This record gives sequence, structure tokens and C-alpha cells, in this order.
Amino acid sequence: MSSTTGPAGASVNRQWRLAARPKGLPVMTDWEFRGEPVPEPGDGQFLVRLLYISLDPAMRGWMNDGRSYVPAVGVGEVMRAGGLGRVVASKHPDFRAGAHVVGTFGVQDYAISDGRGVIRVAGDSAPLVQYLSALGMPGMTAYFGLLEIGHPVAGETVVVSAAAGAVGQLVGQIARIKGCRVVGIAGGAEKCRFIVEELGFDAAVDYKNEDVRAALRERCPDRVHVYFDNVGGEILDIVLTRLALHARVVLCGSVSQYNNEGPARGPSNYMALLVDRARMEGFVVFDYAKRYAEAAREMAGWIADGRLKSVEHVVDGMELFPETLLKLYSGENFGKLILGVGDKTG
Amino acid sequence: MSSTTGPAGASVNRQWRLAARPKGLPVMTDWEFRGEPVPEPGDGQFLVRLLYISLDPAMRGWMNDGRSYVPAVGVGEVMRAGGLGRVVASKHPDFRAGAHVVGTFGVQDYAISDGRGVIRVAGDSAPLVQYLSALGMPGMTAYFGLLEIGHPVAGETVVVSAAAGAVGQLVGQIARIKGCRVVGIAGGAEKCRFIVEELGFDAAVDYKNEDVRAALRERCPDRVHVYFDNVGGEILDIVLTRLALHARVVLCGSVSQYNNEGPARGPSNYMALLVDRARMEGFVVFDYAKRYAEAAREMAGWIADGRLKSVEHVVDGMELFPETLLKLYSGENFGKLILGVGDKTG
Repeated sequence: MSSTTGPAGASVNRQWRLAARPKGLPVMTDWEFRGEPVPEPGDGQFLVRLLYISLDPAMRGWMNDGRSYVPAVGVGEVMRAGGLGRVVASKHPDFRAGAHVVGTFGVQDYAISDGRGVIRVAGDSAPLVQYLSALGMPGMTAYFGLLEIGHPVAGETVVVSAAAGAVGQLVGQIARIKGCRVVGIAGGAEKCRFIVEELGFDAAVDYKNEDVRAALRERCPDRVHVYFDNVGGEILDIVLTRLALHARVVLCGSVSQYNNEGPARGPSNYMALLVDRARMEGFVVFDYAKRYAEAAREMAGWIADGRLKSVEHVVDGMELFPETLLKLYSGENFGKLILGVGDKTG
Repeated sequence: MSSTTGPAGASVNRQWRLAARPKGLPVMTDWEFRGEPVPEPGDGQFLVRLLYISLDPAMRGWMNDGRSYVPAVGVGEVMRAGGLGRVVASKHPDFRAGAHVVGTFGVQDYAISDGRGVIRVAGDSAPLVQYLSALGMPGMTAYFGLLEIGHPVAGETVVVSAAAGAVGQLVGQIARIKGCRVVGIAGGAEKCRFIVEELGFDAAVDYKNEDVRAALRERCPDRVHVYFDNVGGEILDIVLTRLALHARVVLCGSVSQYNNEGPARGPSNYMALLVDRARMEGFVVFDYAKRYAEAAREMAGWIADGRLKSVEHVVDGMELFPETLLKLYSGENFGKLILGVGDKTG
């Protein structure tokens, strides 16, 4: 049994707690930054030293009261977040000190776990951050959302929004692997260049500098068979006007609407679903938990073959959590946004 | 070959033509009422004397320019409408004088046809009007929309809006036949009483006099597995908050929005589709044309067994077309709205 303090004398557990329910974008007064003693694991528990904390658009929804696919984070509670860490003390037979684990550990340096919902990282076959990216939740979300809800068929046109984001980058690449024509919608010339030149998308639409409607008309001559929607709002409405017959709209997120104070903007053009005999369908990745291992194996194989790239955007510093989270909503991140919080060498 | 004039000396073909594209509800100046000579069929053609003209909410959409599942009616053209009539003159080998036929004959007394898209009515097994109701397009729409898109399973809760209308009355009854709990949303106490007491729905929600959200919560304790939407707008938004996991929303129409001058109201709560892993899907009944006969046979069997009622609301008088059409949008009709135009005894 190792010590319950972390490496390098970090004996304080820094935590970001929800102090108030945000209206619109979260501001500093919605958070409390607190130092607590590092907890000790009881029987059947282990202590995790966080190394990487996953920052996801869905976190904004968890801060709201109301019915959703998971309960809201309570005011006063440590903010919920996925993360990757190292087991530093253990009284659990299946999780030995030194093991790397992924779980919902919250925005803090240390977490106690009983192992429920925790996945052991297999080895050194991939960089650790990939287990929060292509081999983690964004990867699972892209894989199951695209394949199980979108049903892409080779030769079809797949459009994805937030295409340079954590999920979008993977959706586009998986669709390419499946033989589809892929068009990504992203903000700014640099992201558009990146998804085409580095990730192999067939085309990009720069929603910040182009007329999205005209650009889609030009770049999707066969219309849109699968639209993987991460953003909602106006872009969803425009894509609805370009659907192919029997198109599938995969609802993954609506990041443009998460910080609205009023009701979300509903898609005015939803009756295009009737004209085009199309469907719009939501999913929650947790429903596919039994198949994560299978999907991660396939994704790892594509990465090993050089067919899939997992791009991460890591910002180091626990104290930077509130401002880093906001990058998701301003669209500043490039690939999967991750907060680096611990000493990776320990 | 019989005379090309109709029965009882009606030798003028009264027509309602589209005079202008309506903004909002169609007004009298959007129409031209014209008398034309009764046309004569050429080789391979026949002349139909209309008896019943079908009035459908979708007609409003046909008056607008823009992409839809059928081309718009041109300004100056006879208004498109389904209808049932009697062949009164024929140079077509398959359509003899005296036969009853259903087709898209327009809002006029007489129509020339080459038989394309025309269905011969089988015999006297059912009242003629039923071929524009349960055994016609509303029946096909209810049957294929509910069964092929909604996939109702016995024991599930099915909700239908415009429940006392042409399609809604049939959707609810078919869902009952399939063993579902059925809740209809309709306007006014009389319609609500009718769908429960006469048509056998399990419950009704009176959207004109009740809080729809509270009423649905009470009358759909297991939430909503299938929602067959004929109305869009606020009611769609409310039902989205009551979906069961893996619910199916069948988009059949959005009659509350057809006369909007601005963009339609999109469903603000569409992200409920994600939370509930649900789908919203449109369909166009014409896609099932090859299976109409099969469906009509099954519907006729249910009618014969007393399990299904086909309710029609017939208003007599060609001159009453414009004002009768408006009943669809004010919700005055009770069952399938039909304009009676010819002498049924001839």
C-alpha cells in the first residue's frame, strides 16, 4: 500500500466546485476553487491522482437543473468531468497502485473510487491522452453515433459540424474510412485547412467566413445523406434544407444553444424531414457501454494503420479550468480539449 | 360512347383556379371561379364527372412556391385536389363509362384523365365517400405513417394530434387495434367526447380548454412511445417533453404552421430526442403506392368487423370551396372534410 499523498508532495486536493447555476456562459462566481485534504481510500476503494481532465461541451448541460440523461451536478458539489489518472493508493483487489484508469473523477487532483464505471488503460500502446480522445468518450461518441444512428453507406455524403472538435474530427475520419464523401463545417480558415489537409476530409465549410447555404450547395452536389450535428442553431437549420432523400440527422449536441438563457432555437426547417423522408435521431453514448472495448479496438487499429488521427489540445494547469472550459463555446479548441493537471512522470 | 356533357344538363365545368399565391390564410382574391366548356376526351382518355372533392391541409402547401414533395400549383391553374367521380365518357379501354374512380382531378366539375394515378373503385362494398377517407389517402396516410414509421407495439402509449381530423381519427383507431393505449389531442369538448366515446380512444386532451402539458402528464403515465404529429407548433414542443425512451415522432403535417407568413416555428425541445434516444421522422404516403391495395383491404376488413369507423364531414356545393377549405385550419371539421359537388344519383 503506497502513501495516500500524491507525487511531489502534492498533499492538497484542489477542486473546482459548482457554486451557482450559471445563466448563459459560466462566470467565475459560478465556481468555487477549494483545497481539501487528500482523501484516503477505504476497503474496496482506491485513490486516483488525476493527470488529464476531459473538458466537454456537455458539461454545460450538467450544470442546469432539469431532466436530462444524467442528473444535474448539485450546487456545492465537485464539478463532474471525465478524467485519466494514476492509482496512487489502493484497497481494491482489481486496481493496483501504478495503474492508469479512466473514469468520471471530477475536476480535482485526487478522487476516491470503488471501481464502478472505471476502465483500466490497457498499456503503453497509445499516448495516455488518447484514452480521453479517440479511444475514450469522444471516440465512442463518434463511432456509435455515426455508425449506429447515421448508418453511412459508401458513396454517400456525410456532413459534420464542429468538425475540428473532439467528436467532429473523428466522425469525419471514420466516415472517410467507410468510403463516404465527407464535408466538415468549422470556424475559421485554419481549422478548415486542417480538416482537409491533415485529416483527409473531402471539403470544408468555414461558417465564420462563408455563406453556409451556398457553400453546402457547392460542396454537397449529391445533397447530404448523413448530418452529424454537434451545434444545433442556424447551421442545423441550413443543413436541413440540403438533405437527400431518406437522410439521417444524428443529434449529438447543440453547443450553439447550451448557454442560451431562453429556450433553445428549434429547427424551423424540421418539416424538411417530411419532404425528404428523413429522420432526426438522438443517442446517448453510455447506452453502448458494453461495446466500448470492441469499438476502441477497431479505432486503435485504424490509428495504428495511419488511417485515423487523434488530435488533442492540452492546456496545463488546474487553476485554468474555468477559462479553458470556455474555449469549447468560443470554438478555440483544436481537437479534443483536455486540462493537464498532474505530474505525468511520477 | 356517351355524351360529353354531364348528368342533368350540367354542361359547364366550374373550376376554382389559383389566382394568386396566398400570404397566410387563403382569401377570396387568391381564387378565380370560372366556368369552362366541358372538355371532350381524346383517344386514350376519359371524362370524369366529380362527385366528391377531398379537402386536405396539405393543399395549403401546394399553393406555395418552393421545393416540396410535389410541384407547386401554378398561378392560373386549376387547384389540385384529390377527388372521386364517375366516368361519363371514355375513349380509354380500361375505364368504362359508369365506373367510379379516384384520382387527382382538381377542384372542378369535370376532369379529363389518361388513367395515370387513377384508381377504380372496387364496387358497392363501401359508401363512396370512404374512398376519400379510410379507404383513400387519409387511410393510407394513417396506416403507413403509424405502422411503418411509428412502429407501435402493443402496450405502448400512442398520442395523435388533430385527433378528430381525417387522419387522426384513423391513427388512433388503428393504434387501438394494435393494442396500444391511445390519447388524442383535439380542440373542444365535443371532439374530445367523440374520439373517446365513439371511436374508442382511451383518453383525450382538449387543447383549447386544458393545460396540454399537465393533461399529458396525467393521461400518459408511461410517457409517449409514439407521437403522430399533424399540427407542429406548440403542441409538438409540449409532447417532446413527455417522450418515452426510444420514442418515435411521426411527422405527418404541421397544420398550425401552414398559414404562417414567416418561418415555421421549430420545435425548441428537439434535444429531447437526444435525452430520450428518440427519433423524429417524416414520410410521404405516395412512397407506399404499391401497397395501397393491401392496406385498403385490411382497413375495409376492420370496418366490416366494426373495429374501425370512417367519419366524413361533407359540405355540398362547388361554390363553397374557398370557405369550406378554411374549416381545416380553424379546426371546424369533424372527420374527413369533403366537398360534395355532383349529383350522386346519376
